[in-house]
Amino acid sequence: MYDTIILGGGPAGVSAGVYAARKQMKTLLITKHFGGQSITSPEIYNWIGTKVISGVDLAKNLEEHMRAQEGVDIKDGEEVVKVEKSDGGFKVVTDVNSYESKTVLICNGAGRRKLNVAGEREFDGRGVAYCSTCDAPMFRGKAVAVVGCGNAGLEAARDLLPYAKEVYIFTNSDQIKGDPVTLAKIKQAPNFQGVVYNTNIKEILGDKMVSGLKYQDTKTGEEKTLAVQGIFIEIGSLPNSGAVADLVALNGQGEIIIDHRTGTTSVPGVFAAGDITDSAYKQSNIAVGDAAKATLSAYQYLQGKAN
Amino acid sequence: MYDTIILGGGPAGVSAGVYAARKQMKTLLITKHFGGQSITSPEIYNWIGTKVISGVDLAKNLEEHMRAQEGVDIKDGEEVVKVEKSDGGFKVVTDVNSYESKTVLICNGAGRRKLNVAGEREFDGRGVAYCSTCDAPMFRGKAVAVVGCGNAGLEAARDLLPYAKEVYIFTNSDQIKGDPVTLAKIKQAPNFQGVVYNTNIKEILGDKMVSGLKYQDTKTGEEKTLAVQGIFIEIGSLPNSGAVADLVALNGQGEIIIDHRTGTTSVPGVFAAGDITDSAYKQSNIAVGDAAKATLSAYQYLQGKAN
Repeated sequence: MYDTIILGGGPAGVSAGVYAARKQMKTLLITKHFGGQSITSPEIYNWIGTKVISGVDLAKNLEEHMRAQEGVDIKDGEEVVKVEKSDGGFKVVTDVNSYESKTVLICNGAGRRKLNVAGEREFDGRGVAYCSTCDAPMFRGKAVAVVGCGNAGLEAARDLLPYAKEVYIFTNSDQIKGDPVTLAKIKQAPNFQGVVYNTNIKEILGDKMVSGLKYQDTKTGEEKTLAVQGIFIEIGSLPNSGAVADLVALNGQGEIIIDHRTGTTSVPGVFAAGDITDSAYKQSNIAVGDAAKATLSAYQYLQGKAN
Repeated sequence: MYDTIILGGGPAGVSAGVYAARKQMKTLLITKHFGGQSITSPEIYNWIGTKVISGVDLAKNLEEHMRAQEGVDIKDGEEVVKVEKSDGGFKVVTDVNSYESKTVLICNGAGRRKLNVAGEREFDGRGVAYCSTCDAPMFRGKAVAVVGCGNAGLEAARDLLPYAKEVYIFTNSDQIKGDPVTLAKIKQAPNFQGVVYNTNIKEILGDKMVSGLKYQDTKTGEEKTLAVQGIFIEIGSLPNSGAVADLVALNGQGEIIIDHRTGTTSVPGVFAAGDITDSAYKQSNIAVGDAAKATLSAYQYLQGKAN
């Protein structure tokens, strides 16, 4: 019986593991791999305290920090399929085993919804991007397409306008889904090239780096290409909350609803942090801080429970 | 007129500065010095992503990361004495000048209440400590005194028991101020040596490192010494909120009350993060994450306001 089981090995999971170790909690961390979503970023400029680091190096540093902790068991390569209540606390079922614990720290993040077109995976981090707060400054003087016209898409366009030479927004719809007031503001920028409505993205073109976008006009069926050096895909995020969907309360996007001061969820003994939660902004730095909160709350919970 | 003025150059202030720069906000950061409260720690083991770093090196890394940002003016060495509303937003008055901005990010932390006895400053980071979550593991096998018997003092003792050889609690009162249930649990540990009531700490003894504690029994007037290698001072924290006390709502401890999901305060356009807020746990990692939230909220506020 563990004091806590941590789901996830990204910034949130590692933060939880380090804090749990310092509190001498008997801990198991389960992750498919270390590093989280940032692992594909070639250059991260906003990992606080470090001027620039690659996603691969950050993942390596996180894993090393985690493995330096005494008293934390690590199962990497295992996938959690179900978390449920059990007699003394909780049972975490993976694809190969099951484990019991008094508390659970859910830190297994989210994935980005993909276009699933040719070139998307190949050019990830080489022109294809998913985080404008992180990556907009790398597209200075370039032509960039944003795919998606919800608020995330509009905000990506807004983030890119001060840097990029040209910014386009593509959508498969005939109208934007985000706030019109944001679009109105975007339209004032001389380098904004407009919204391209009724389009399906067919392929991301390039050699070593992205060089263009092939898309179909869904009204005419016509296929066209546009020369761009960057493509920001903003068509939604997919929290990895399937295994806990029957355990804790989720919001309409499938994110775990938490108390943002403490990381508590709807279930006593279950805590959550990072991109899997209903946090306002998805950032590695935020995931780290919120996971520290959740872990210290789990420790307080264990102390109370033991009395 | 700045888009934002950041108060503070610790982990929260630097995080705010980096995020503001990436959003191309016209930013001024004002701090007495860089690095925050951790600067005195000889070895920090829970700065996530880094196995171990000294407080001085962390401060240096934070300052370098901050100075690498384009478009952020920095006034270091200035002290903010007052923040007040002005026509277009806010006026920040320092000991040498005054500045105007549309938003304010309050990140200037807290100080620890000191004993103000001989040896306290001299042995800070050399046996004298103020954060048990951070430093308890460095006192493995040692005799340690905790000064203070509120919940922070009791929790420090609890954090030390798995590591230290002997743990004492000192208080100037004749009863504990923290939760009796926590003390009951502490008393079960064989290495807990008891609460020493009715004592005034007179001096912290040592040569290169702490070697003991001189204290007075306030009932008898008798002076005694106890050999310890560590002294955790847990007699309260002092948020640096004097300059904003007339501007934003504070709690009973003088901490700024925030919405923990967004970092908003009681005043639109004023945001706060880190140890100066009513956050549940005071940790550098948490300050960084919460400052990222506050800055992204300030950016959203500026976008809305500009329409």
